[in-house]
Amino acid sequence: MRPVAVVGIGKTSFGAFPQRDLRSLAVEAGQKCLADAHVSASHVEAFYLGNFAGPAFVGQNHLAPYVASGLGISGVPCTRFEAACASSGSAFFHGVASVAAGMYDLVLVAGVEKMTSQPTPVVTEILAGAGDTTSEVRAGATFPALFGMIARRHMFQYGTTREQLAAVAVKNHSNGAKNPLAHMRKVITMEQALAGKPVAEPLTIYDCSLISDGAAAVILAPLERAAEFTDKVARILGVAQTSDAVALDNKDDITSFHAVRLAAEKAYRKAGVKPSDIQFAELHDCFTIAEIIAMEDLGWVKPGEGGPYALSGRTCLRGERPVNASGGLKSKGHPVGATGVGQICDVVMQIRGEAGDLQVPRHSLGLAENLGGSGATAVVTILGAV
Amino acid sequence: MRPVAVVGIGKTSFGAFPQRDLRSLAVEAGQKCLADAHVSASHVEAFYLGNFAGPAFVGQNHLAPYVASGLGISGVPCTRFEAACASSGSAFFHGVASVAAGMYDLVLVAGVEKMTSQPTPVVTEILAGAGDTTSEVRAGATFPALFGMIARRHMFQYGTTREQLAAVAVKNHSNGAKNPLAHMRKVITMEQALAGKPVAEPLTIYDCSLISDGAAAVILAPLERAAEFTDKVARILGVAQTSDAVALDNKDDITSFHAVRLAAEKAYRKAGVKPSDIQFAELHDCFTIAEIIAMEDLGWVKPGEGGPYALSGRTCLRGERPVNASGGLKSKGHPVGATGVGQICDVVMQIRGEAGDLQVPRHSLGLAENLGGSGATAVVTILGAV
Repeated sequence: MRPVAVVGIGKTSFGAFPQRDLRSLAVEAGQKCLADAHVSASHVEAFYLGNFAGPAFVGQNHLAPYVASGLGISGVPCTRFEAACASSGSAFFHGVASVAAGMYDLVLVAGVEKMTSQPTPVVTEILAGAGDTTSEVRAGATFPALFGMIARRHMFQYGTTREQLAAVAVKNHSNGAKNPLAHMRKVITMEQALAGKPVAEPLTIYDCSLISDGAAAVILAPLERAAEFTDKVARILGVAQTSDAVALDNKDDITSFHAVRLAAEKAYRKAGVKPSDIQFAELHDCFTIAEIIAMEDLGWVKPGEGGPYALSGRTCLRGERPVNASGGLKSKGHPVGATGVGQICDVVMQIRGEAGDLQVPRHSLGLAENLGGSGATAVVTILGAV
Repeated sequence: MRPVAVVGIGKTSFGAFPQRDLRSLAVEAGQKCLADAHVSASHVEAFYLGNFAGPAFVGQNHLAPYVASGLGISGVPCTRFEAACASSGSAFFHGVASVAAGMYDLVLVAGVEKMTSQPTPVVTEILAGAGDTTSEVRAGATFPALFGMIARRHMFQYGTTREQLAAVAVKNHSNGAKNPLAHMRKVITMEQALAGKPVAEPLTIYDCSLISDGAAAVILAPLERAAEFTDKVARILGVAQTSDAVALDNKDDITSFHAVRLAAEKAYRKAGVKPSDIQFAELHDCFTIAEIIAMEDLGWVKPGEGGPYALSGRTCLRGERPVNASGGLKSKGHPVGATGVGQICDVVMQIRGEAGDLQVPRHSLGLAENLGGSGATAVVTILGAV
């Protein structure tokens, strides 16, 4: 297996764009990405697309060739990956593997979701399809409800507090307010976060990520050829995808995501780094509790210590290990299928030193964690400066 | 890249099974397949699942870990692939690539679809999502309509006749009647086929494949280890996936599928065989015209000669090059996401000499062609006896 690099990135704004359709978003991200790497569409040897629920949100299936033809990519393998909120993380994992294996030299990986064309109750129902319909969904469990149960259990087991959850929201909103591509550029106070309207107790509106439209893309090449495309190479040191049962009731412990622990372990091993080496990260804060649990599952702190760590300020933009400098899913937005690749773009921007007001102090070793559903899929990626 | 073999196969019956859910079908195929290769689920290193529209048909998304947990597979990459009717062909292509590249030794690839829980008009609408919703679907074009246009143009351009289309239906029903796992085990006469109720002229009910439930699975291993699992090894000589535009109006010529031509060319080259070497095949007869066009695109006959070739009887069970000995999508059934892997199972059964009443005379070199939508994805696989 040969080393692989990200040689181009491209993102749309995340937000609610009533005038934009799914294809135009994906094409915009793809074109920006190709331009960033100075690559023409005709040189792309394979196209990997992550999308969660285009068929349900906009009625379009068979999305990989549908988007590819809009980019001028044809005649090569164009494949759609669906793994709930980790759809484009999964596409990225497979894209990296294909370049590492020497199957291709130039691979475009994108993620897209167009969610806001449906009313919120319909969106909630579509998202619920990432849970287990034969048990959870039948019983009325939406995703806020599932993560509400997870949060409640974490509080019971470890004493995690509402303030600790709110600290994640306050930080991510503070970061997102500085991100020109973020969906909700709005600073919130701890008081506001604590007084949020309940969604699924103990989670309030400020604990939940956003329903967004958006797309993101990266272009991959073997490290040995990276300099042909960019002078700001980000190397993929390790990436792993793992799985677990879909339904929460099939898990021994809902205060930890087994798939994340396993993916992290594999990614650290491949990268040859320790958890404490990670300087900054984009974590999958679909709900505030998920960011807290992720820090525990990634081995930065012990189980139960994620809440105090979040409240301590050490994950703030200028803290010892900034988390979600981009604003995270909470403030940047969460166009489900775009999120995984969007995180990679954000980590690469940091590594390149191009994150502007969001630039973190130490930025040579970053991590992205992308979670599917309530933990049935996890993708962990470690990227570094060359 | 190292040679890869199919070391186990497993299929459910295809049909309408009101008592069965999607997961139980996929699990049945997966378990049969693991048993066939004498492999336990805990040895599976990655799971590739093809499914077209589980979310729309049964409301369940995030299908790869959902099915995997039912099989006892966890902690490894479990990924869903969607490429319309070529969904499991695409999963197979990626699974083969991963073993060829040395990423894994034992990979399970499955396909599943549960369609009959929805009424036919809803199924037609869901299937239409594999076309271009911004042009074709908006104009009311269902898949029978799209293939009706393709057939009409093929008739106009080459003089293809209704009798030639009907010959495909008569042959495939004759074969399927002998297949214990087929959906519609019913012999039809040429007279019946010609008098079929119109669906989208010139296509009648006998030109259209079936709406089915079903699942299929194969297990892949490096050729050098194949003997550990089976004494009836089928070697994958070549496999290619390619793409084209989704909408028919973006294609220069609708009487040929460019993606199939390209995939066939690549697969022949990898396998080191000529079109005329192929002894038998499973072709994607979603509509009778598609089988005729496939034989032209695969280079067996010149453009326009597929119709006369079909009528000549040379593709019958005891003909010079049997096509769809299984009964094809027409009679065996077409559970969309299961079709690609189902074809591979049928080719492997022939290679092993296990096809019973359906056994073809020469069976050491076979081909499977899996088409997505109206040709935006194609997967062509060539398999041989070792």
